[in-house]
Amino acid sequence: MSGRVTILTGGVGGAKLVLGLCHAIPADTVTAIVNTGDDFRHLGLSISPDIDTLLYTLSGKANAAQGWGREGESWSFMDAVRSLGGEDWFQLGDGDLALHVLRSERLRTGDPLSAIIADFAAAWGIAAPMLPMTDDVVATKVETNEGLLDFQHYFVRRRCEPVVRSIRFEGATAARPGPGVIKALSNPDCEAVLIAPSNPFLSVDPILSVPGIREALAGSRAPVIAVSPIVSGKAVKGPTAKMMTELGLDISAAAVADHYAGVIDAMLVDERDPPQDLAIPSARADTLMTTLHDRIRVARTALDLAASVRR
Amino acid sequence: MSGRVTILTGGVGGAKLVLGLCHAIPADTVTAIVNTGDDFRHLGLSISPDIDTLLYTLSGKANAAQGWGREGESWSFMDAVRSLGGEDWFQLGDGDLALHVLRSERLRTGDPLSAIIADFAAAWGIAAPMLPMTDDVVATKVETNEGLLDFQHYFVRRRCEPVVRSIRFEGATAARPGPGVIKALSNPDCEAVLIAPSNPFLSVDPILSVPGIREALAGSRAPVIAVSPIVSGKAVKGPTAKMMTELGLDISAAAVADHYAGVIDAMLVDERDPPQDLAIPSARADTLMTTLHDRIRVARTALDLAASVRR
Repeated sequence: MSGRVTILTGGVGGAKLVLGLCHAIPADTVTAIVNTGDDFRHLGLSISPDIDTLLYTLSGKANAAQGWGREGESWSFMDAVRSLGGEDWFQLGDGDLALHVLRSERLRTGDPLSAIIADFAAAWGIAAPMLPMTDDVVATKVETNEGLLDFQHYFVRRRCEPVVRSIRFEGATAARPGPGVIKALSNPDCEAVLIAPSNPFLSVDPILSVPGIREALAGSRAPVIAVSPIVSGKAVKGPTAKMMTELGLDISAAAVADHYAGVIDAMLVDERDPPQDLAIPSARADTLMTTLHDRIRVARTALDLAASVRR
Repeated sequence: MSGRVTILTGGVGGAKLVLGLCHAIPADTVTAIVNTGDDFRHLGLSISPDIDTLLYTLSGKANAAQGWGREGESWSFMDAVRSLGGEDWFQLGDGDLALHVLRSERLRTGDPLSAIIADFAAAWGIAAPMLPMTDDVVATKVETNEGLLDFQHYFVRRRCEPVVRSIRFEGATAARPGPGVIKALSNPDCEAVLIAPSNPFLSVDPILSVPGIREALAGSRAPVIAVSPIVSGKAVKGPTAKMMTELGLDISAAAVADHYAGVIDAMLVDERDPPQDLAIPSARADTLMTTLHDRIRVARTALDLAASVRR
């Protein structure tokens, strides 16, 4: 792999693969296109959960045990918010607040999210370009048995308990891809596009909902490879499996491949899964990414698969 | 003293006397009218330094050794802001941020500062009504040898080093007294009005600059007593003495009394000061407020002076 690699990603699970990629090949040849459908305003602050997870993961600041937020985080702010009767269902760590406060202020003065994130990434020495899928507002909404919920209300406040009926991405039809996004997909230097093992419905679909991105993937000379988020018939983390059941889908790599039909050229399937009947090329490997070593190995395996299915 | 007492106050020094008052007489009979000329926006947050000092002091959360902010404060936010290249000249503690974030959000949604502060005070069990001098924006600006500086730029960023030529309160002429302010001064139950030993030019003058407050003081049946901020020919804290020199004034209780001429009926002067030639009644006492015991004693002495000069 001598060219560039672009990866579509959500937060925690995706960030692990992006980190692996950044060790498998030179980090500055990896471009991450990041979901912003989870972004929301809370306590007047503009919060970008998936982008921030990438920032923490790629700069070595992530809390590995917790799975989100900063290592060594403190919680004086939340304690004081609680003492004042403020909303405390969304945890904002003391150090984490810096991203939200500085981002909110710059957004208020008219700076685009992409420029702000580029500055944050540079300040923290992140070599891989991190591109928000869009600088426009796209908000993931979940239609459930409890009504239409904002994403974070579904995900954090209601802990994914409501039954999902459908998902929509408000603002998507009017959104434009963020600066560099289309180029990262259609650049002749791009040798592979990966879709991270993030939640297909909540983390990857928002990216694909931005007009122009699906078309750029179709027109790319690089093969598009999805890493399956399913391991042993379960999702590694988060509500993917529960949602697939609620949406009437099998919990399987094949169902995810079907969901990505027309977008992906091949899929990396976990070796613990039962044999899959896929209409596209695939490879099987251990896709669990517990250690950094695992992450690098999965990244390399996905790139090998890409090399074998060149368009 | 069986009625109510109202005190005009700035931050640190004034808060000590307010705390003493709240122990000398029932706290719910003490009304503090608080300077908001220091209020400013920083990193997109609305910050009210004097009000917050009162909130911390009266709820037992103040950092006594440091003289400002919260006891046991942590600084992860500032560390992260610095790592991101953000402005770090104004210290915002992790716990302290809760006041700023919650206040900013409520101001943005249209709530007046007075209502927000009343809620904060109630949440923290503060019995004494704390009234912002105004719900409108009044901004203290300092004309110096380095040009016109915003208050916090003069006070914190430039550490009061520029030479002060004059001070103005932008927005004051159009400002209205905050809810309850005029009543707290003109209520027949009000038996004394105290002016805290805060900086006369930076902390008390902004309050007096709000149209209606000076008139309410003049019309009050309660005597108005200033506690001198000068001890042994020096200011206890802050730039009062330096400013008085720069403004061509003696550093003396008499000069402060002259400054308040027409507003105050009597002054409590520190016993270490040289004899003063005052045109108004005065008493002498130890006015240093190191311990809570000191604060209660000074409060009682000021109330005794008020009782002796009833209008």
